[in-house]
Amino acid sequence: MNHLPTKRLRFCLLTLFIVLSSACGLRAVEADKPSKPNFVVIFCDDLGWGDLGCFGNPTIRTKHLDKMAAEGMKFTQFYVGASVCTPSRAALMTGRLPCRSGMCSNKKRVLFPDSKGGIPASEVTLAEALKQGGYSTACFGKWHLGHLKPFLPTSNGFDYFFGIPYSNDMDRLASAPKGREAVFNPKPEYYNVPLMRNEEIIERPADQTTITRRYTEEAIKYIDENKDKPFFIYLAHSMPHIPLFRSPEFVGVSRRGYFGDVIQEIDWSVGQILQKLRDTGLDENTLVVFCSDNGPWLIFGDHGGSAGPLRDGKGSTWDGGMREPTIFWWPKTIPAGEVAADVGSTMDLMATFTKLAGVPTPTANKLDSYDLTPVLKQTGTSKRESLFYYRGYDLMAVRHGPWKLHLYTQTGYGGKRETHNPPLLFNLEHDPGESRNVANDNPEVIEEILAVIKKHQSEMVFAESQLEIR
Amino acid sequence: MNHLPTKRLRFCLLTLFIVLSSACGLRAVEADKPSKPNFVVIFCDDLGWGDLGCFGNPTIRTKHLDKMAAEGMKFTQFYVGASVCTPSRAALMTGRLPCRSGMCSNKKRVLFPDSKGGIPASEVTLAEALKQGGYSTACFGKWHLGHLKPFLPTSNGFDYFFGIPYSNDMDRLASAPKGREAVFNPKPEYYNVPLMRNEEIIERPADQTTITRRYTEEAIKYIDENKDKPFFIYLAHSMPHIPLFRSPEFVGVSRRGYFGDVIQEIDWSVGQILQKLRDTGLDENTLVVFCSDNGPWLIFGDHGGSAGPLRDGKGSTWDGGMREPTIFWWPKTIPAGEVAADVGSTMDLMATFTKLAGVPTPTANKLDSYDLTPVLKQTGTSKRESLFYYRGYDLMAVRHGPWKLHLYTQTGYGGKRETHNPPLLFNLEHDPGESRNVANDNPEVIEEILAVIKKHQSEMVFAESQLEIR
Repeated sequence: MNHLPTKRLRFCLLTLFIVLSSACGLRAVEADKPSKPNFVVIFCDDLGWGDLGCFGNPTIRTKHLDKMAAEGMKFTQFYVGASVCTPSRAALMTGRLPCRSGMCSNKKRVLFPDSKGGIPASEVTLAEALKQGGYSTACFGKWHLGHLKPFLPTSNGFDYFFGIPYSNDMDRLASAPKGREAVFNPKPEYYNVPLMRNEEIIERPADQTTITRRYTEEAIKYIDENKDKPFFIYLAHSMPHIPLFRSPEFVGVSRRGYFGDVIQEIDWSVGQILQKLRDTGLDENTLVVFCSDNGPWLIFGDHGGSAGPLRDGKGSTWDGGMREPTIFWWPKTIPAGEVAADVGSTMDLMATFTKLAGVPTPTANKLDSYDLTPVLKQTGTSKRESLFYYRGYDLMAVRHGPWKLHLYTQTGYGGKRETHNPPLLFNLEHDPGESRNVANDNPEVIEEILAVIKKHQSEMVFAESQLEIR
Repeated sequence: MNHLPTKRLRFCLLTLFIVLSSACGLRAVEADKPSKPNFVVIFCDDLGWGDLGCFGNPTIRTKHLDKMAAEGMKFTQFYVGASVCTPSRAALMTGRLPCRSGMCSNKKRVLFPDSKGGIPASEVTLAEALKQGGYSTACFGKWHLGHLKPFLPTSNGFDYFFGIPYSNDMDRLASAPKGREAVFNPKPEYYNVPLMRNEEIIERPADQTTITRRYTEEAIKYIDENKDKPFFIYLAHSMPHIPLFRSPEFVGVSRRGYFGDVIQEIDWSVGQILQKLRDTGLDENTLVVFCSDNGPWLIFGDHGGSAGPLRDGKGSTWDGGMREPTIFWWPKTIPAGEVAADVGSTMDLMATFTKLAGVPTPTANKLDSYDLTPVLKQTGTSKRESLFYYRGYDLMAVRHGPWKLHLYTQTGYGGKRETHNPPLLFNLEHDPGESRNVANDNPEVIEEILAVIKKHQSEMVFAESQLEIR
């Protein structure tokens, strides 16, 4: 307490200095701001809606993500385009339902190492759209939209790729332990997953124990090297997909065990990225979006995540499979500490980013993308009225306003499909856990949604599956 | 943008003024600070763990509570002493398991308007303990520890009482609609609940539509009138217990329907209390605790709350019945934005508040109370090792570290009791939803907890039930 006056004096002088310098200098800095914002999408793998502190996880500590949410906007009703990896990523990258691009299947749910297909050349990716507007583009992490040359990130709008071409549990070696041992006590050498730089394999098997850290370091280096022009970074962590891995410094840091450690390393990574943006003065000109590709892989118990109050997880069209913990962050443009009332989708990034970047929104293909700018700037609402939940090529459910109508339901993995005639109806804003079917009380809502479905299906053009090409 | 320089100049001058005045004046203010902190406990009724934005509710907006959490410390593993009203409130008020005071029963779960019992004179209440240390004490809201004179707040350490003596759904009039109509389309006149000031009934039936607002206004007035001496305010909202009511200004404000409106009025109330503390300069000398008495009343569907990822609700010893969304707020003393790793209980308020107030912790009766000060100040951990989940006089389950062992389980209302031999075991830090029984993998943990139970039961002295006195 004795030092207090001195400390206070020092604080006063510092504040005075800051006040005066901002009065004199800030306008000049503002004038120098590039007009095109940067975009960073941080995309996790199999992270559940309930796995972050700011989304109600009791024991996983996510200080940086909590701070990101407090400084930005939480989307509590934000969806992906499918409940498994490949189609979900295709939806984000194209702004289209995966059945329009053929990046889905009723037989093979995702691409596998023996697949010969991938994202068709006719698709305009988010990276391609932004690149036309002068953006530098880089993809770090898991791709999973095709591992043959025409399908790689560098063939689809990205200047640079550092990551793995498909899931981190593929290419399991015959010499690896059988059963669940390879999952619950994983070693990098059990999985012969390639780590690539651009089109070259630089490490195989990828050392997954340090992979989250290395993606982060690469992304930070990229920010440093590209800070003078607009950039789009797609940082798609391969975690927390099983088998779980984390850097040595994160072993045992979480009360939530191995899974918690992994999330806390991702949280560290988010902190690093945001700090880098602050340090380079880019924070007020960069929109950062945090999300994940689908819900938690519940069959893996402690090694899987949690959908919190939502029903079911990965692989399911119950909301736990397709609603993701999402944060939009852009200091001074997005108001701090807000929660969006709107429904959003990863498919909306296409319309939103192109709008913000001042580049044309692709018109070659039919989009399922709605501009979120009015929501982010709190000047209006999203024009999205409906959201379609597909499993492969099958339309399972539709969200329309607060209502969700299920034609069919099926649990994430292994469950039998149930047909609902009459359909099930839930009010997701009142009952996010989809536990109280209110179909009987709302016949007119059902009629309305059935009409929406009829229109949607009459206009839908399916593309042939890329996932079934062998 | 044209006005920016002028605005900035105005901002500079203002900041300069603030900087200089704080340099000169703040020490004087600090020296005047009373040494005893004030305490405000804001206690809800049937609020679930998942009903606040900062605890992961997707559609209920709780701006003030979210801010309170961001400025204070969230407890994500904080428990009440019982899963229903009367025993839970007795636990908070005495720092003791309700079976020690007789404030529970295996026949009548709570006190009813025809009950003749209440909190025994031999119990030392939190209000009595603080009053001995010179505190002004006031209770606003629902009491439910006995409505005959010896049991009222004013006979149990409170200088002042403004509220209802028991639940807001009691005294339903015979003329009210039958069945659920009186619950789902409630009118104040259906329930002949008395509103009291001290020992007098001042309104009957209480106009519940404005009751949250009126409790708040009374509490704010009390802060104004008592700001020059230490005070303890127990603000026990009668909401969101069914039948739900909210003030006209809150009708339709929430996307979560009627229930959400009610929570958003409570959130408004919290904002009012904290702002009053800031306005009176008491914020840095007041510990505010937000909590609820038990989990959500799930049988009421949309009119009940949500336990988020936790299992079951009110009336149950699954965690959804007894773990509550809890925030401790004390600017400059409790670090901002932290999440406690420790397990806490409403019973711990007795040891914590008396310690902080510098008054003797009551020794007349055996306490179940552990000082949380080291957790709040981040100087150490709580000494609590175990937590006992009772249903009436029956020990159902025990939490010990991260582990919870169930001897018996029973759903909140109407379910049959199941005996578990061998017991069920869950790791609550990994699996807060109690979905993965890990008893088989942890025989030594079970042995350890059974020994804890044996010791606890050998020392337990039950008091005769006050709830069965008619």
